[in-house]
Amino acid sequence: MKKIEHIGIAVKNIEDSNNLFASLFGKPQYKTETVESEGVKTSFFEVGPNKIELLEGTTETSPITKFIEKKGEGIHHIAFDVENIEDEITRLKLEGFTVLNETPKKGADNKLVAFLHPKTTNGVLIELCQEIS
Amino acid sequence: MKKIEHIGIAVKNIEDSNNLFASLFGKPQYKTETVESEGVKTSFFEVGPNKIELLEGTTETSPITKFIEKKGEGIHHIAFDVENIEDEITRLKLEGFTVLNETPKKGADNKLVAFLHPKTTNGVLIELCQEIS
Repeated sequence: MKKIEHIGIAVKNIEDSNNLFASLFGKPQYKTETVESEGVKTSFFEVGPNKIELLEGTTETSPITKFIEKKGEGIHHIAFDVENIEDEITRLKLEGFTVLNETPKKGADNKLVAFLHPKTTNGVLIELCQEIS
Repeated sequence: MKKIEHIGIAVKNIEDSNNLFASLFGKPQYKTETVESEGVKTSFFEVGPNKIELLEGTTETSPITKFIEKKGEGIHHIAFDVENIEDEITRLKLEGFTVLNETPKKGADNKLVAFLHPKTTNGVLIELCQEIS
């Protein structure tokens, strides 16, 4: 794993939170993107080599809407940048982690992504991501 | 803010979690440290320019023990590396954030640290940290 690619934060209203995080970082989001297949609106802030991704659910069945209903707003996942996502999935399965996407799927920000089940990672939802070249 | 310095993860048993995260990252923690004043045992893993900090509470009144009682194991805070922590505290107070430590305190890993109250940051506990030179 090369670095923390981003931290995903579940928010109720992305416009309000864009303002809040722009105040925090002293600069606005550099990108917004809607991922229809996941039912989310996202925005990205750059912090040096890392990013913060805000996520608002756009449907009642969106994982983000459900997360906020259950736990409230807050940190949703950590994403690690990996060299080769297929190799990492194979390695982590052998190590005993539960990989939720055995075949990586297309995520936001031009990435192939796969998630690890939090039950095998101390309650932390972990995303592996690899830039689509 | 220069980068994500680390993500803090609250765990019940740091020895077990050290093994788990060593499997995840393919390498062991590079440091362990007990911060008596906070009632925590910590360990650190390097992921490129970033770190993961595991935290186990050592007393019943430790913030980590209380966090786990309330929310279970999982992500506890995000720490951002800042150039000058006093300047950031001043700036963020003016922006309307609630700073929990108006005077930075000594944290783990040779850092001066200050926290922002999650109620003003979308439910996210944010730590500012500056290396003690």
